[in-house]
Amino acid sequence: MSLLVTGSIGIDTVESPAGKAVDALGGSCVYFAYAASFFTPVRLVGVVGEDCPRGFLDPLARTGRIDLSGVEVRKGSKTFRWHGRYHDDVNVRDTVAVELNVLAERGPAIPEAFRDSTHVFLANTHPALQGELIGQLSSPALIVADTMDLWIETQRDALLGLLERIDGLVLNDSEAKLLTGKSNVVAAGLEIARKVRRFVVVKKGEHGSLLFAESRVCALPSYPTVNVVDPTGAGDSFAGAMMGYLAATGRCDLTALREALAYGTVTASIGLEGFSLGRFLAVGREDIERRLAEFRELVRF
Amino acid sequence: MSLLVTGSIGIDTVESPAGKAVDALGGSCVYFAYAASFFTPVRLVGVVGEDCPRGFLDPLARTGRIDLSGVEVRKGSKTFRWHGRYHDDVNVRDTVAVELNVLAERGPAIPEAFRDSTHVFLANTHPALQGELIGQLSSPALIVADTMDLWIETQRDALLGLLERIDGLVLNDSEAKLLTGKSNVVAAGLEIARKVRRFVVVKKGEHGSLLFAESRVCALPSYPTVNVVDPTGAGDSFAGAMMGYLAATGRCDLTALREALAYGTVTASIGLEGFSLGRFLAVGREDIERRLAEFRELVRF
Repeated sequence: MSLLVTGSIGIDTVESPAGKAVDALGGSCVYFAYAASFFTPVRLVGVVGEDCPRGFLDPLARTGRIDLSGVEVRKGSKTFRWHGRYHDDVNVRDTVAVELNVLAERGPAIPEAFRDSTHVFLANTHPALQGELIGQLSSPALIVADTMDLWIETQRDALLGLLERIDGLVLNDSEAKLLTGKSNVVAAGLEIARKVRRFVVVKKGEHGSLLFAESRVCALPSYPTVNVVDPTGAGDSFAGAMMGYLAATGRCDLTALREALAYGTVTASIGLEGFSLGRFLAVGREDIERRLAEFRELVRF
Repeated sequence: MSLLVTGSIGIDTVESPAGKAVDALGGSCVYFAYAASFFTPVRLVGVVGEDCPRGFLDPLARTGRIDLSGVEVRKGSKTFRWHGRYHDDVNVRDTVAVELNVLAERGPAIPEAFRDSTHVFLANTHPALQGELIGQLSSPALIVADTMDLWIETQRDALLGLLERIDGLVLNDSEAKLLTGKSNVVAAGLEIARKVRRFVVVKKGEHGSLLFAESRVCALPSYPTVNVVDPTGAGDSFAGAMMGYLAATGRCDLTALREALAYGTVTASIGLEGFSLGRFLAVGREDIERRLAEFRELVRF
């Protein structure tokens, strides 16, 4: 099994009630890859600009599990930048500034050596580009994508077309409602699950997640934590751990999906305890296993 | 063990996307009592006015498990009335009209025969009145109260005084944040748990609930359902099943509280599938057990 992720690499500035991180490593495929690397090796495909600081991706490289040979440094382009500010209620954030830069240009190509990847995660980007990336794969066993409100509103047909070509979709509750026009998130998830091949995961942030697979609904709360420093990338970390677990086990049955959801939950809960990848750099798989055991205990009845 | 509930009895008119119920049986202690009666006999204390329709409480009486001898029909007074309208998103509702009527007068007295109740639920009312009711009990083993934003904002000292006298508090997430000034609901729950004797339950509606007891946090999602007809009273039904289970078992340890939370979750999820008590009238304990088994299955990993 081999796990590929494509998505954004960003230079993030984040302000939260806990402090501030300036020009920190961020982006969907960065969080995804680091979280997934606790479970399985990861192949990362993304683009940065010439301005990308030297050694910026070293934290990923140092895992020894993330293959960065698919990262393109594009001449004449600038790296994606995002500046966000979380409120005292960290569930609310403002985007202070965003510079799409290289993300507004053509997407990356999947290197020849990565085209045999069995497990693929297409982080949020234009659904047409996600479709193109799928076309570059030789033998995908499990293709999962993320999306966002922008594409639901402006590229609905392309997105609906994409759904038929993917095994799983990961999206948040407001996106699920927007995509279906249903105000009941369970009804929304069930409807989307009928459009994809295998499963839908609806992320609800601090309220946990829902899994729709095999005509069933599963639900998990979030890991209850007081120590929320920086929620940036939590959804990507969630997806990374989930996909990392599925790739590591080579399974995609309902039992495996439930376990993957639980791993996603606890891994994301660790990540948000620090800015950028800070907390991830300080923990190992054993910490994830310990938190999973705690999580299992606290949802038990 | 004997379970007493005091709270409102109301004549409710409810509009939801699923239809409309006019002058239906409602009120906090009505929902509570019916849900609790699946588990244990219940003693109900409340006040209605002279206008209360004949036979209005018959659905409660017909359970054979709810003692209505503590219901006062007050001469010259009118029954509490509430008219609410749920949006397409049933998590949002407007109060179209409310007539406090008898609820704005003096509270009910606990009949002599009920004063030896071991388990007591004080549904939402003025905290000073809740305190008075506690004073009428001879041998309470477990006193649990509900509250609301109005009392947190206007009767904070009385409410804080009450917390020291009760074993458990049940409130919703926005109330927990309001009471503590904390935006993190876990931090809020932990703080409130230090003020009461035993436990706090934070209800999050469609997002499940959190339990804070014995310095621990437990979390459950809601039972994922598409069929939401009328969420009125769901929080009271939740508390009713929870307290009914605790009274029936005579336990209040962490394991019992977790089970009680799960029973509260599934019982409330049944109640909201119909207007007023409609669904409850059509089900029995075996239906609750069946849904509990489904719930256990869907949160398993």
